This record gives sequence, structure tokens and C-alpha cells, in this order.
Amino acid sequence: MEQISIATFQRIIKKAGAERVSDDAAIELRDIIENLADELAIEIIKVARHAGRKTIKSEDIDLITK
Amino acid sequence: MEQISIATFQRIIKKAGAERVSDDAAIELRDIIENLADELAIEIIKVARHAGRKTIKSEDIDLITK
Repeated sequence: MEQISIATFQRIIKKAGAERVSDDAAIELRDIIENLADELAIEIIKVARHAGRKTIKSEDIDLITK
Repeated sequence: MEQISIATFQRIIKKAGAERVSDDAAIELRDIIENLADELAIEIIKVARHAGRKTIKSEDIDLITK
């Protein structure tokens, strides 16, 4: 958790067209996105192990996201 | 796009338990997560506008993610 800054999410939301973004909103989006990334990472590692590898490759990500 | 560094995703995947992560894999996860954040941001802005606000608040994020 908290690998990505709140400022990054302020930027992402403003780039999408928002005039102002509350700190609470940026924090909440950061938490949602980071949780999702953490959950995806766990699944990605499972499929790499299933393939007998210790190195995560893009094909592992393809398998769970496509 | 490309608001979040590849190193961040290397860290997220390693924290989840991976020994090694290929650059391609980190780039692919970055792209997937950033696209998702961009798409969520667009929806969040729509619901804020619908509520007559120019400021994005956490309740806008709640509405589309809960």
C-alpha cells in the first residue's frame, strides 16, 4: 500500500477534465487503485508459479487480464 | 498515461512475493492500471457534474466504486 503518491491521482483526475479534486477523493482513488494492483499482483504471481517460473513475465499478466 | 513509474509496479509485484519481474511485465501492469484509473476518473467527473459540482469529492468515487 501507498506506493503511489496522492499528487499522481490529483493529476490523473485533472487530466481527465476535473477543475478541482479534494484531497479525500485523491486518497480514496489511490487506495482503490493500489488495492487492485496488489490483488492483481498476487494473481500474476500464482500463474507464473503455475508455469514453473520465478520471474514474472508479461504473458502472466495477459493470462489474468485478457 | 504514464503518470506512474515502471519502478513502482516492480515494487508492487515484488512486495506481493515475486522474486523477479521482467520490464515488459511491469510496463504492461502499469498500462493496465493507468488505463483503469483514467477510465474511472472520467466516470467520477461525470457524477460530480451530475451533482452540480466542479470539485471532485470522495462521494463521487464512492458512487461509482461501491
